[in-house]
Amino acid sequence: MEKPLILITNDDGVAAPGIHFLAQWVREMGEVYVVAPTSARSGMSSAMTVNSPLRIVEREGYEFGRLFAVDGTPVDCVKLALHTILPRRPDILLSGINHGSNAGNSVIYSGTMGAVFEGAMAGIPSVGYSLLSHSMNADFNECRRYIERITKAVINKCLPADVALNVNFPAKVKIVGMKVCRAARSHWTEEYQQFTDPHGKPFYWLTGEQINEEPDATDTDLYWLGKNYASVVPVVADQTATNAIASLAQLL
Amino acid sequence: MEKPLILITNDDGVAAPGIHFLAQWVREMGEVYVVAPTSARSGMSSAMTVNSPLRIVEREGYEFGRLFAVDGTPVDCVKLALHTILPRRPDILLSGINHGSNAGNSVIYSGTMGAVFEGAMAGIPSVGYSLLSHSMNADFNECRRYIERITKAVINKCLPADVALNVNFPAKVKIVGMKVCRAARSHWTEEYQQFTDPHGKPFYWLTGEQINEEPDATDTDLYWLGKNYASVVPVVADQTATNAIASLAQLL
Repeated sequence: MEKPLILITNDDGVAAPGIHFLAQWVREMGEVYVVAPTSARSGMSSAMTVNSPLRIVEREGYEFGRLFAVDGTPVDCVKLALHTILPRRPDILLSGINHGSNAGNSVIYSGTMGAVFEGAMAGIPSVGYSLLSHSMNADFNECRRYIERITKAVINKCLPADVALNVNFPAKVKIVGMKVCRAARSHWTEEYQQFTDPHGKPFYWLTGEQINEEPDATDTDLYWLGKNYASVVPVVADQTATNAIASLAQLL
Repeated sequence: MEKPLILITNDDGVAAPGIHFLAQWVREMGEVYVVAPTSARSGMSSAMTVNSPLRIVEREGYEFGRLFAVDGTPVDCVKLALHTILPRRPDILLSGINHGSNAGNSVIYSGTMGAVFEGAMAGIPSVGYSLLSHSMNADFNECRRYIERITKAVINKCLPADVALNVNFPAKVKIVGMKVCRAARSHWTEEYQQFTDPHGKPFYWLTGEQINEEPDATDTDLYWLGKNYASVVPVVADQTATNAIASLAQLL
């Protein structure tokens, strides 16, 4: 029997430490192809490159398997991997390990999770892994046993049809355990810092802080991450509000 | 009583005809602010600009109200509008009229709908309008009465909490009516065209065709658009697969 084919991508780029830890930790479980952006593409969501061409460059010398850099978004990487690069359909797609949180409402902006939704829409079991630290020197070791456990379970087909996973790990702590939960309702405050350029004209830079709108709810990712647990949120690409169809058919 | 404040954005840029038709058709319903990308930003999904500054430039001379160009994504436009540009919280956010379809699974890649989800997460009733034609000379007149009807209903608070609308119009036909429905399960085929540059190196350009995976289902947007109806899909930003939480808690 062929080994499982493992497609790995991210939004921090092929040089980010997180993707290399991930590739090394899962290499015993299958044949690894890394296909990731040439440079960091954070906050890219499910963006794709429509109006310019894309290049694929293989880089050699990685013991975990093959590595390809694409000068596009995470979704571009997944599309090109499936269309052009991979020798066959992958058995699993892993995205990450992201340097930074994708918990709460961050999932909708996340390029890491954009790649995961792309995999899910193609019918491939897909998982995003993220560590709650933006540092390039972050310590990922506490994540390892959870990543091995989840990846093995997903290769062994634990995921329902259309469902993917958004896994987040607390940083700089001993991880207590793992909770399957929902994304916390959250928003961002103070989203822009205003500057004035040398010519007296204003410009704006995105910043801000994520606020958990339901801090007392004990079934959310932000709650459990705050208790030093890894959070596992099952997600789907389809955003149809099925429950609202009948009432809106009356009101519109 | 103050007139409703109407925020309008898009992903085709401030110069696209679609956004000007939209602004003109709703100007009698409230005070209009257009805040849209400086140039076309298609396929941007919920992408936001993290690593570079943003500029806001007001352009004058529009009879429908005020117009601001932002050199960022549709989500950047909504965030900056709410944070910096608008005099108060808007009563409604409209995005479009997009030049091109956002039906089926296109919604996840759509910058038009990225702006709508951003509005919905901020608690603002939000609607995306799209015409199934990419032409800059497309005839939008058939859409007008539906846009007026839906916009009025949404200003009058017909939307359930957290629910936004993805409205698509068939092009070059007499529109028969309007159906509230779900997004069709769909995928894209032949996604890349391969070229060879003058130096003999390959490059790839996104292309392809959307395939309706359930052509016989009579409750989808792609079905009704094919019958010359406008489709209205209620959508939510949150992608948590709530139904999968309990079973995955056992399996992982």
